Amino acid sequence: MIRVAILGATGYTALELIKLLLRHPEVEITTLTSRQEGNPHVGMVHPSLAGRLDLTLEDLQPAAVAQRAQCVFSCLPHGVTASLVPTLLDAGVRVIDFSADYRLDDPDTFAQWYGEKHADPTRLGKVVYGLPELFREQIREAKLVANPGCYPTTAILALTPLIKAGLIEPRDIIVDSKSGVSGAGRTPKLTTHFPECNESLSAYNVGRHRHTPEIEQIVRRGVGQDVSVIFTPHLVPMDRGILSTIYSKPKGEVTEEKLFQTYREFYADEPFVRIVSHLPGTKDATDTNFCDITARVVRGRVLTISCIDNLIKGASGAAVQNFNLMYGFPETTALL
Amino acid sequence: MIRVAILGATGYTALELIKLLLRHPEVEITTLTSRQEGNPHVGMVHPSLAGRLDLTLEDLQPAAVAQRAQCVFSCLPHGVTASLVPTLLDAGVRVIDFSADYRLDDPDTFAQWYGEKHADPTRLGKVVYGLPELFREQIREAKLVANPGCYPTTAILALTPLIKAGLIEPRDIIVDSKSGVSGAGRTPKLTTHFPECNESLSAYNVGRHRHTPEIEQIVRRGVGQDVSVIFTPHLVPMDRGILSTIYSKPKGEVTEEKLFQTYREFYADEPFVRIVSHLPGTKDATDTNFCDITARVVRGRVLTISCIDNLIKGASGAAVQNFNLMYGFPETTALL
Amino acid sequence: MIRVAILGATGYTALELIKLLLRHPEVEITTLTSRQEGNPHVGMVHPSLAGRLDLTLEDLQPAAVAQRAQCVFSCLPHGVTASLVPTLLDAGVRVIDFSADYRLDDPDTFAQWYGEKHADPTRLGKVVYGLPELFREQIREAKLVANPGCYPTTAILALTPLIKAGLIEPRDIIVDSKSGVSGAGRTPKLTTHFPECNESLSAYNVGRHRHTPEIEQIVRRGVGQDVSVIFTPHLVPMDRGILSTIYSKPKGEVTEEKLFQTYREFYADEPFVRIVSHLPGTKDATDTNFCDITARVVRGRVLTISCIDNLIKGASGAAVQNFNLMYGFPETTALL
Amino acid sequence: MIRVAILGATGYTALELIKLLLRHPEVEITTLTSRQEGNPHVGMVHPSLAGRLDLTLEDLQPAAVAQRAQCVFSCLPHGVTASLVPTLLDAGVRVIDFSADYRLDDPDTFAQWYGEKHADPTRLGKVVYGLPELFREQIREAKLVANPGCYPTTAILALTPLIKAGLIEPRDIIVDSKSGVSGAGRTPKLTTHFPECNESLSAYNVGRHRHTPEIEQIVRRGVGQDVSVIFTPHLVPMDRGILSTIYSKPKGEVTEEKLFQTYREFYADEPFVRIVSHLPGTKDATDTNFCDITARVVRGRVLTISCIDNLIKGASGAAVQNFNLMYGFPETTALL
Repeated sequence: MIRVAILGATGYTALELIKLLLRHPEVEITTLTSRQEGNPHVGMVHPSLAGRLDLTLEDLQPAAVAQRAQCVFSCLPHGVTASLVPTLLDAGVRVIDFSADYRLDDPDTFAQWYGEKHADPTRLGKVVYGLPELFREQIREAKLVANPGCYPTTAILALTPLIKAGLIEPRDIIVDSKSGVSGAGRTPKLTTHFPECNESLSAYNVGRHRHTPEIEQIVRRGVGQDVSVIFTPHLVPMDRGILSTIYSKPKGEVTEEKLFQTYREFYADEPFVRIVSHLPGTKDATDTNFCDITARVVRGRVLTISCIDNLIKGASGAAVQNFNLMYGFPETTALL
Repeated sequence: MIRVAILGATGYTALELIKLLLRHPEVEITTLTSRQEGNPHVGMVHPSLAGRLDLTLEDLQPAAVAQRAQCVFSCLPHGVTASLVPTLLDAGVRVIDFSADYRLDDPDTFAQWYGEKHADPTRLGKVVYGLPELFREQIREAKLVANPGCYPTTAILALTPLIKAGLIEPRDIIVDSKSGVSGAGRTPKLTTHFPECNESLSAYNVGRHRHTPEIEQIVRRGVGQDVSVIFTPHLVPMDRGILSTIYSKPKGEVTEEKLFQTYREFYADEPFVRIVSHLPGTKDATDTNFCDITARVVRGRVLTISCIDNLIKGASGAAVQNFNLMYGFPETTALL
Repeated sequence: MIRVAILGATGYTALELIKLLLRHPEVEITTLTSRQEGNPHVGMVHPSLAGRLDLTLEDLQPAAVAQRAQCVFSCLPHGVTASLVPTLLDAGVRVIDFSADYRLDDPDTFAQWYGEKHADPTRLGKVVYGLPELFREQIREAKLVANPGCYPTTAILALTPLIKAGLIEPRDIIVDSKSGVSGAGRTPKLTTHFPECNESLSAYNVGRHRHTPEIEQIVRRGVGQDVSVIFTPHLVPMDRGILSTIYSKPKGEVTEEKLFQTYREFYADEPFVRIVSHLPGTKDATDTNFCDITARVVRGRVLTISCIDNLIKGASGAAVQNFNLMYGFPETTALL
Repeated sequence: MIRVAILGATGYTALELIKLLLRHPEVEITTLTSRQEGNPHVGMVHPSLAGRLDLTLEDLQPAAVAQRAQCVFSCLPHGVTASLVPTLLDAGVRVIDFSADYRLDDPDTFAQWYGEKHADPTRLGKVVYGLPELFREQIREAKLVANPGCYPTTAILALTPLIKAGLIEPRDIIVDSKSGVSGAGRTPKLTTHFPECNESLSAYNVGRHRHTPEIEQIVRRGVGQDVSVIFTPHLVPMDRGILSTIYSKPKGEVTEEKLFQTYREFYADEPFVRIVSHLPGTKDATDTNFCDITARVVRGRVLTISCIDNLIKGASGAAVQNFNLMYGFPETTALL
């Protein structure tokens, strides 16, 4: 039984994480934190959890958390996490971090895209990126895992096998992504106010979304070549789900058969990647830890489509998968 | 050409009002007000109006508004309106007020349900309620019109003919109403944050919604008998539309034929009430100024269903209908 | 390990059932049936199941099913089921029937509401109704369980404790229910075509929905008194969820405290009923087997609100709960 | 007063067309046709039109239609239209055709993409394409107008100015489009069944959507150069709206300023194209005849976004705009 804590337990990723962990036979959730005043019961903050978990949300310091948990899932925003992680690691706690703080290779790129100095710069570039399909062995041993971003998961899983196999150019790649609104978090804003975003679709952060360098750096880690993408996220009037339509250029002749064969071999033993011949919808992956991928050759271009549930495979499911690897449990525990 | 001003132009009712008035051949919108800093262009506040209206939103005092407009549509919140209306009326401006400030009969009921003292109490009880189907002649002459609430419109139009005809008891009436989210306004809140209210339905303000006394008092004005209702509003994951399912007790025997005949006679000359034999959906009335009403007898109870677009017949369409009456234009101008 | 078959595996209740059973450690799904030609793979019919279950849908006779399964979940339409059940029972198979065929007390009521003669009339009135909160002990022993209807589950769970405690009148009860669209099944129709029902809400089958006698007969079984309800279902633009707003008359004085106390005592040991003080939304229960119930006293009326996920507690979750009881597994297995 | 007929009046484009024409002061709708049996009233087929138009839908031959109408709007499916149009034209009726039958340049391309022989091949290549922004003068004189496809409208309006100005390469263009479900028509299908497509997003017809040659041929007509696009449509859970995200390669250096200047000059006098600096959402254009366009330079690529209401500017609004040009009415009549 592993005692775990969840930091920043008021948001949607924390909610999904709690639901998954409640099904995990080897986990005891001992601690939930939040800066909300008055230590509200988790059933007040997340009514769907009423009667399922009897904990309050507490405003705790890292040292206090470390006394109650062997593993910490941090759902805090970027910037905050990196100021807490060193204390946790020093106290011998293993950390799975949902923020972007430890995903990038270097503090300069972080500062450039996130607009602030990194609080724990020396660790950057040494933290394992928690995508088991690419970094499974390193995850097993990790003390700190940078849990992948939701959009990057779809792009990295679709691109890596094809670039690695030399089937597509690593440059001039277009990632046109569409996401449900839960990806924008739980803080009310005009853009996510129901009558504003319902029955509407729009692009946002065009050319400057922070997942751009994450996609490029992690694919590069996986394939050993420089990669460049144009990444365009769109907001879709649905709760959850991300679908990325990815356009790339083949290196020489390429057939759909070859694309499928490459994917199928690359992901042959993966429990959570499904290579499908039909065109998947996000709903196929909703409430699951699966990533569905398909491919087409259209007028000389390679078109790949990948989709996930942004809160599961794009966040909390991936975290549990990482947790299972870190603690030696069967990788699919609580995830099927 | 009537020069009009719209106070509180940032919300959804103002947006719909502007769209309707842009189609009105006898209206010139001269003024939009808001407390937003920096006098933003209306196309910034409402992107759908870009290129259709070239005005900025200004933070103006009533006296300044009165110099620019013959008629003022006030979309300000309750409480605020009653503090501005006297100045406008004194300056000879006619006012159509979207707030609840002038709908009720007396300051005590206002204080009881709205939790504050009324700013202009002596006028209460003398202001015409802007429902043309009941008060058309008074509206024509009015200097100040209290534009009806959205829920009350559905209930009052469904109940008045039947009570007046002595077909149903005026007491122990149940009004179970369902509304789209635009009815909650444009200010972001957790309850109207997309991932919270999408794919969910809930009741709210059970037993204490402020439209309760409005329904009771206005029906009483129309029928001359005391009326009591239990009113339960629900929030529905859609932009617009209200459907009210109303349960009442027949006085003696009543048939569906009699109910329909009563409705059809009562509303025979009404341009915006449709008595329908099928079960209407809110979408039938979306983007229109119609109220669709049907009736059934179920196990000895009378069940009536009425639906409207809460932003049109429940707010801005009704206001334009009132405006047309007040200025002698054909009542359906800009509304069909 | 119990071998189970699912009849009529193409619909939404079957899909949810399969997802739940895949998490059940003591279940082996051996057989899926459907009349679809060509024995399609379940991953073709339900893309979300790709890679999770390797079975085809077969067009099998009951005798063949009986050879492969100890327990049959029948998701077939009413009328069809009753023609197959006798064969299955004779072969020693236990059956959990999702249709309405065995829910009512007598063939006459069935014929009156379902418009056809019952195929297995002698069994009616002797089949246990699969609502564990009321009939747990009988379910344990049952060979055939009539799985409850979705709407009736909300009404029966809300009404039974209050009528039994003598707090409300068993007559003149109004059940105003709102349901997501999955309740209408998976066969495309104009009324459930996306652009028709999206952004719209409407009542349907007013005064003649077949769940009316089910609510009345089952509450009567539970409380021993005749019960009469007016039941009005509404279609809501969301995938899943039912919320019922129920109006009844108190017997004498009743307080909210008394209502809550009665509910809390009645459901004290129930794993899947949550008595909540806030106004629940359907989303609180989505993807869970919970029924959330609250109560208010409004102007001398008792108002109760209950909500469930129509596909889980209203269908497949209830079926798994029944299965657990029938086979002696912990009641919550695969359901938390 | 122009007498008009609408062929195929049961679908969504016909419904929107009727709503627009009811506001047109110079139009009398005399005839609605459909193959539905029993000559249903239009208020039965489209409940939102109850009380607004008193016509039945009749199953009429072209010759009969020609006696009642000076102008025919044909909302019939492709293939059917081309078999009726010659008769209508011979009878002196002017025709605005919503189908794809007369949009392409040649019968071979038609046969290749639509899978059937064209019924009226000699006319192909001579019919004016009803996009006023490109072909206004020809539309004025036309007897037959091929009303544009919804997706092509977004792509053609975004691409033509930039290719014509030599700012982007006419080849290797990617058009990633997202559409609401009304674009799929009103015939119920599994893919547009609410619980299937709600809360889901998917691509469809990848590499083989029939709007591909339409985009290419019409842009070529406008710019005089061969054009090639990869067009990927996606289905989005909303009623209406199309947003196309278009990726192209600049010819030499290009700045956002230059892109905006080019668009603004090209569309300077257009009443229904709005060049916006913000990222538009489909809702900005909903229920309007506007096309909103913006542009960005991202990592050396030109990214343009255009959006419309697929039923208005993408179908019925464009048709009314064409009608106004053909009959010499102000172009914006009934459209603002």
